[in-house]
Amino acid sequence: MKSYKTVISLMSGTSIDSIDACLVKIFEDLTFEVIDSYSLEYPDEIRDKLFNLANNTGSVKDVCLMNTVVGELFAKCANSLIKKSGLKKEQIDFISSHGQTICHLPDKKSTLQIGDISVISYKTGIMTIGDFRPKDMAANGQGAPLVPFADKILFGTDKGRLIQNIGGISNVTVLSNKCEIFAFDNGPGNMLIDYFMNKLFNLPYDKDGEIALKGLIDEIWLNKLLTNPYYSIIPPKSTGRELFNSEYAEKIYKIAPKNKYDIIATVTALTAKTIADSYINFIFPKVKPDEIVLGGGGAYNNAIIKFLHNYLPDIQIKTHEDYNIPNKLKECIAFAYLGYYTVNKQPNNIPSCTGAESSVILGKISY
Amino acid sequence: MKSYKTVISLMSGTSIDSIDACLVKIFEDLTFEVIDSYSLEYPDEIRDKLFNLANNTGSVKDVCLMNTVVGELFAKCANSLIKKSGLKKEQIDFISSHGQTICHLPDKKSTLQIGDISVISYKTGIMTIGDFRPKDMAANGQGAPLVPFADKILFGTDKGRLIQNIGGISNVTVLSNKCEIFAFDNGPGNMLIDYFMNKLFNLPYDKDGEIALKGLIDEIWLNKLLTNPYYSIIPPKSTGRELFNSEYAEKIYKIAPKNKYDIIATVTALTAKTIADSYINFIFPKVKPDEIVLGGGGAYNNAIIKFLHNYLPDIQIKTHEDYNIPNKLKECIAFAYLGYYTVNKQPNNIPSCTGAESSVILGKISY
Repeated sequence: MKSYKTVISLMSGTSIDSIDACLVKIFEDLTFEVIDSYSLEYPDEIRDKLFNLANNTGSVKDVCLMNTVVGELFAKCANSLIKKSGLKKEQIDFISSHGQTICHLPDKKSTLQIGDISVISYKTGIMTIGDFRPKDMAANGQGAPLVPFADKILFGTDKGRLIQNIGGISNVTVLSNKCEIFAFDNGPGNMLIDYFMNKLFNLPYDKDGEIALKGLIDEIWLNKLLTNPYYSIIPPKSTGRELFNSEYAEKIYKIAPKNKYDIIATVTALTAKTIADSYINFIFPKVKPDEIVLGGGGAYNNAIIKFLHNYLPDIQIKTHEDYNIPNKLKECIAFAYLGYYTVNKQPNNIPSCTGAESSVILGKISY
Repeated sequence: MKSYKTVISLMSGTSIDSIDACLVKIFEDLTFEVIDSYSLEYPDEIRDKLFNLANNTGSVKDVCLMNTVVGELFAKCANSLIKKSGLKKEQIDFISSHGQTICHLPDKKSTLQIGDISVISYKTGIMTIGDFRPKDMAANGQGAPLVPFADKILFGTDKGRLIQNIGGISNVTVLSNKCEIFAFDNGPGNMLIDYFMNKLFNLPYDKDGEIALKGLIDEIWLNKLLTNPYYSIIPPKSTGRELFNSEYAEKIYKIAPKNKYDIIATVTALTAKTIADSYINFIFPKVKPDEIVLGGGGAYNNAIIKFLHNYLPDIQIKTHEDYNIPNKLKECIAFAYLGYYTVNKQPNNIPSCTGAESSVILGKISY
C-alpha cells in the first residue's frame, strides 16, 4: 500500500463562472487518483460583483466583503464535495484553494486572489492552503504560471510537449529535456470569444465552436488585433483581465466587421493565431516539440482546433484525456500538487517559468 | 535555562502613523523579555494612500498594490530591527505581523488587513504569521479585540483590572476572577483629537494634552456627540475608521464651537466620557474593578487622564509601565504572543471578548 494524502482542491478561473472542486489522492510517488469532483456555479449576483471587481470597479469595502463571501462559497463547494463523496471531513488531509483572482499586476509585483482561507478552514474544519501567487511575485516573479510545476510532475520531460491550456486566458508550458521548463500566457483564450458570444448571441460561450465555424475570418480586423503589444513581449509574461477585459472588447468592437458570425470567427482565429505565433516566435527557436496537449474549455472548441491545425500543420494535437487526466479537472489537480508541496515545506514555483529569482514555498496556511 | 522563541512582532494601528516593531523573547513559562524595538514612519505619500483606502476611497488596483507596498515596508522595518539588534536573521524563530487595517466590517464578518505576509517572509527570509482577524470573524466573532488574549497572560486575573488602551480607537479589557474576560471598543480614542489637531493646529496630535487643557469643554456639543448610537450598543462590539472617520469628523465640525481650543478640549472629553460611561453601563454591573491600567498614546494625554479622574473619582489609574510593560510596545508584544500560539497550533482568540462561537487558531502562516 502506497501512502497518500487526501486533498480537496478548489479552483476558479478568470472566466468567473464556477468554483471547480476535486477530491484527489496524491500518493508518495507523486501519482494521483481522482476520487470525486464537484462544481458550484457562482450565483449571478456574486458573479456580477466579481466581474466589477475584476474590471477595477468597486470599492475597498466591496473587496473586503467579497473576500469573505467568496471564501464562504469555496467552503460550501468543498463541503458539498465531501458530502457527495461519502467521505468524512476527518479523512481529508487538507484543502488547497486557488481563490478568485480579481487583480493581477505583474509589473507591480502585486496580485489579489480573494476567498479567504481562514473562512474556508473554519467553515470546513479542514486545514487550508491558498494564496499561492504573492510569494512568487515577492521573489520578483510574475506570480504565474504556476500550473507548469504540476505539468512537470504529470507529463515528465521525456519528449518535447507543449501543454496548451485555453481558459479565459491561453497559456502554454514547454516541457522538454532540451531546455529548462518555461511557460507563458499566449494571450486571450476564450475571454473575447465569450464576451462577444454574450453580447451578440446572448449565450455564455461558443459551444464546440459552432458559431465561429459559420463565420468568416476578417483578416483586416484580425491583423489590427494582432498589433496588441502584449503578443511581442518576450516571455516570461503573464496577463489577465487587466488587459483583455470588457473595456478592450468594446474598443475593438468599434472597428469590428458587421456580421456577428464573422466577429466570433475572427476572435476565435485570434486565439489560435496568437498561440501559433507565440510558438513560432518564442518556442520553436529553442525546442521543436513532438506534440501539443490541449486543455481548458478551448480544447472543446472545434474552430480553435481547426485554426490551430491550419497555423501549425506539422504538430500532433492531443488532449489531456489522452494522458488520463480529466481536462475539466486539470488545473484543480495542479493546485492539489501545489498545496501538497506547501504542506511539506517544499518549494513549488518554477523560476524559469515565472521569472522569479529563486525557488520559494508558495502559499499560506490556515489551520 | 528556560527555553524560548525569539520573535519579531510588527504592528500598525488605525492612526496609520508608523510601523512599530519589537524583538522579544517569549519563554516557555509565557514570560517575555524585550530585546530591542524599532519604529518606521510611513512615508507621507504611502500614508495618504492608506488613509484613502481606510476611508473607502481607492480602487481594487490600489488595494492590490498597497498590499504589496505595505508588506515591503513591514519587511523593511523587521530587517532594520534585526540590523539594529545585532542578531542574525537565523536567530529569529518567526515574525508575527498584524498588518494594516484598511477595512473592518464586523456586521458583515469581513475585515481587511494589508501587508502581505508572503512579501514579509520572502523579504526577511523568516517564517511569518499574520492576518489574525478573519478567522475569528469566520467563527462569527467581531475579529476584535485580540489583545485581551495577551492581557490575560500578562496581567493574570488575580484582581479586577481594566486594561484601557487609548489608541486611534479606545478599547478596554476586563480582567477579573469574578466573570469571564470581556472586552470591547469604547469609541474614538485619539482619532478625532488627532484629526482636529491636524486640521486646526497643523500638528499631528495634542502632545501631553496641552491644547485640550487650554480649552473649555462645550457641554452642548459634547452631549450631541454622545448621542452616537455606537455608545449604547451592548458589548461585544468593535469599531474603527468606518465610523469615526474624516467624514464623521467633518460632519460634527459643522456644529462645533468656534474656539479651536474648545474643540480639542471637547473631543478629548468625549474620549474620556465615552470610556467612563462604558464602564458605568457595561462593566460595573458585573465587576467592581480595583484599578485601571492605561495604555496607548492616550496614556500620555494629561487632559484625558484629568477628565477620567473627574468622571471616575473612585478608581486608581495606573499605567503599563507600573507593570514593566513598555506602553509603546504593548500591542506589539501582544501580537508576538498571538503568533506564538498560532505556530504552536493552539487557539488564541477569546470568544467571550470577540463574540466568536468557538476557540480557533487565528492567522495564516507563510514559510
